[in-house]
Amino acid sequence: MENDPQKISPDVDSVGLVKPCSVVLFPPDDPLRLKCGVRLSEIRVEYETYGRLNEERDNAVLICHALSGDAHAAGYHSADDRKPGWWDNMIGSGKALDTDRYFVVCSNFLGGCKGTTGPSSVDPRTGKPYGMNFPMVTIHDMVVCQKKLIDHLGIDRLLTVVGGSMGGMQVLEWAVSFPERVASVIPIATTHRTSPQSIAFDEVGRQAIFNDPNWNRGDYYGGEAPDRGLAIARMIGHITYLSDKSMHEKFGRDLRLRDEYGYAFEQEFQVESYLHYQGIQFTKRFDANTYLYITKAMDYFDMSVGHSSLSASLQRADCKFLLIAFSSDWLFPPYQMKQIANALRNNGTDVTYVEIESDYGHDAFLLEADKLTRMLSAFLGFLSSASPSPAVPDEVAAQPQAR
Amino acid sequence: MENDPQKISPDVDSVGLVKPCSVVLFPPDDPLRLKCGVRLSEIRVEYETYGRLNEERDNAVLICHALSGDAHAAGYHSADDRKPGWWDNMIGSGKALDTDRYFVVCSNFLGGCKGTTGPSSVDPRTGKPYGMNFPMVTIHDMVVCQKKLIDHLGIDRLLTVVGGSMGGMQVLEWAVSFPERVASVIPIATTHRTSPQSIAFDEVGRQAIFNDPNWNRGDYYGGEAPDRGLAIARMIGHITYLSDKSMHEKFGRDLRLRDEYGYAFEQEFQVESYLHYQGIQFTKRFDANTYLYITKAMDYFDMSVGHSSLSASLQRADCKFLLIAFSSDWLFPPYQMKQIANALRNNGTDVTYVEIESDYGHDAFLLEADKLTRMLSAFLGFLSSASPSPAVPDEVAAQPQAR
Repeated sequence: MENDPQKISPDVDSVGLVKPCSVVLFPPDDPLRLKCGVRLSEIRVEYETYGRLNEERDNAVLICHALSGDAHAAGYHSADDRKPGWWDNMIGSGKALDTDRYFVVCSNFLGGCKGTTGPSSVDPRTGKPYGMNFPMVTIHDMVVCQKKLIDHLGIDRLLTVVGGSMGGMQVLEWAVSFPERVASVIPIATTHRTSPQSIAFDEVGRQAIFNDPNWNRGDYYGGEAPDRGLAIARMIGHITYLSDKSMHEKFGRDLRLRDEYGYAFEQEFQVESYLHYQGIQFTKRFDANTYLYITKAMDYFDMSVGHSSLSASLQRADCKFLLIAFSSDWLFPPYQMKQIANALRNNGTDVTYVEIESDYGHDAFLLEADKLTRMLSAFLGFLSSASPSPAVPDEVAAQPQAR
Repeated sequence: MENDPQKISPDVDSVGLVKPCSVVLFPPDDPLRLKCGVRLSEIRVEYETYGRLNEERDNAVLICHALSGDAHAAGYHSADDRKPGWWDNMIGSGKALDTDRYFVVCSNFLGGCKGTTGPSSVDPRTGKPYGMNFPMVTIHDMVVCQKKLIDHLGIDRLLTVVGGSMGGMQVLEWAVSFPERVASVIPIATTHRTSPQSIAFDEVGRQAIFNDPNWNRGDYYGGEAPDRGLAIARMIGHITYLSDKSMHEKFGRDLRLRDEYGYAFEQEFQVESYLHYQGIQFTKRFDANTYLYITKAMDYFDMSVGHSSLSASLQRADCKFLLIAFSSDWLFPPYQMKQIANALRNNGTDVTYVEIESDYGHDAFLLEADKLTRMLSAFLGFLSSASPSPAVPDEVAAQPQAR
């Protein structure tokens, strides 16, 4: 296969050992005013950077991560690390986000559980974890928090903001909330508003957590965590990340335990075993309350709210757009990305829309590194040129354009 | 809308008051030998009939119901009944399954919880409900049980066997297990083998039940039932029964409680409220252990097992086929029905395949009564003629045929 993920990130291109950073933003006298009305201060933000900020300070790229991601996008934390950061195949010397050219920043989003303040963090007012006392956060709130980090890093204008899935929602929010701070944005496999089907899946996942007796109304820190509920939520998620076709190719109806049916309630099919494994692994690195809050932030995401149309909501955007969808993604299907492209074209915004042919489903944004690399390299390479539309390699650009 | 389900079944066409019947089959000296190896006897089968068996005994139609259905397919059990049987829009005087012409039979399947022996039934050996001591049953076992009922009713050959979804699996099984007993079959919105994606959804639903503390390893009869787990399983099911488009049309992102976001964990969106309602309603009429067993029976369904190909597995079939798929059904998508049609054509079997254009998703088999009626009426009307292929109305037949 052209882009076997096992083969695309040889260590020679790795950014190597990286050190996570953190900073406390929003002092008590200048809190973050959340959309829900609550003022949150003393927000710790975890982030990593790769490459160097140039003297002109105009080579910074911000990466927004997805639901289960974190600030650790590339490289290794220690020599013993078995796995690099989550987008390592895209970040490094000579890669799409070339660390010889760009200063790459990735921060764990507000409400997360990977170093940035969220439900599992200690509430300074009580000395105990927030749990369900954490205020509801939105995609907009996350972006306001990221913008404060960019201020802190002394970056006036980002060369681009890029991210897939829920990361793409943040990217879109950047374009309209801080248009003067971004030269371009690259939303990948995302949507301008979460569909009722996605809300439905999210709600079922939340109910699985609520129904776990260990959840204890969110007050489980120091005790048994609601791992079984969180694992179910993750299993549901993973079904939506794969396509019907990729599941056929990856698992088919293969049996795990023996050649014939066992006629018992056990993980008999490979696909069951895969989901269980993914569910259990997730509980080792993620917090159940955080899952509740972040899925809710996604459900609330709808750029049109308060505007007469999607075009109207995108009116403030003043940068180049590269929109990338994947043909078999049914969580955030191409038609939703096309709606964004059309709305931007109505506004006269400079937009390139590409639908990449892939069987990987939504997961393609993590797996199709070769195709993404060609797209991003071309787009970023021409950003500083006078060309109104970036020159995109023919073989990938020759996809259906927005109707 | 052309086929608003509220408008298609005026009571004047109803079969009226009907009385459920039941019979105990498979005496101890002639047990049902299940696929799993267990011998089950003293099986009670609940069924209903509508219309009259003619003297030639050649006008009998068997209906196979889906996962959550039952023997009560048409009419009312009492004058106070608010809802008729589950396929009332298809059964009655002048309807697709015209009770003036046909003798219609529907039985609750083996392993069910609506009168036929299943996990919630009392095990005669212990005097207690079977619970998880119930043996695993398969689609084939269900059909063997139905065939014994057909014997009991004195019917040598069924004019047709018809059913949607999991009912369609039973229909296909009839065609190959008892070819001499069926003149035709009508599998609707079904598949010849459950896909890994469907197995995945089923397994997540089962895990939600297993994780409910009330489940108690299946021993909950007489106590609190695992309703919260069963409701989650049903919520997942309902997402797969609707299409993305129908969810947009039915709910969109409409809020239920107020005009603005509440920033709280509550059933805020209409789609959440719908799913919760469906989940709770289901627990009032369905048994959680039965859900476990029946989803497992679906997961095991694969006609090709033990054969070199799908065509080979269908070789024994010796009847006319009318296969009906719905364009927006992503649980059992049209391409799977086309595979069956192709395999039958390879065998030289008389098959008509129709893909009905519908936005209702998998649920279309319950909602598109007008379109189904035209198809079934034409097919059944020509069954006794010499024409090799039934004449299907042009406007519905002019759909993509199997490739």
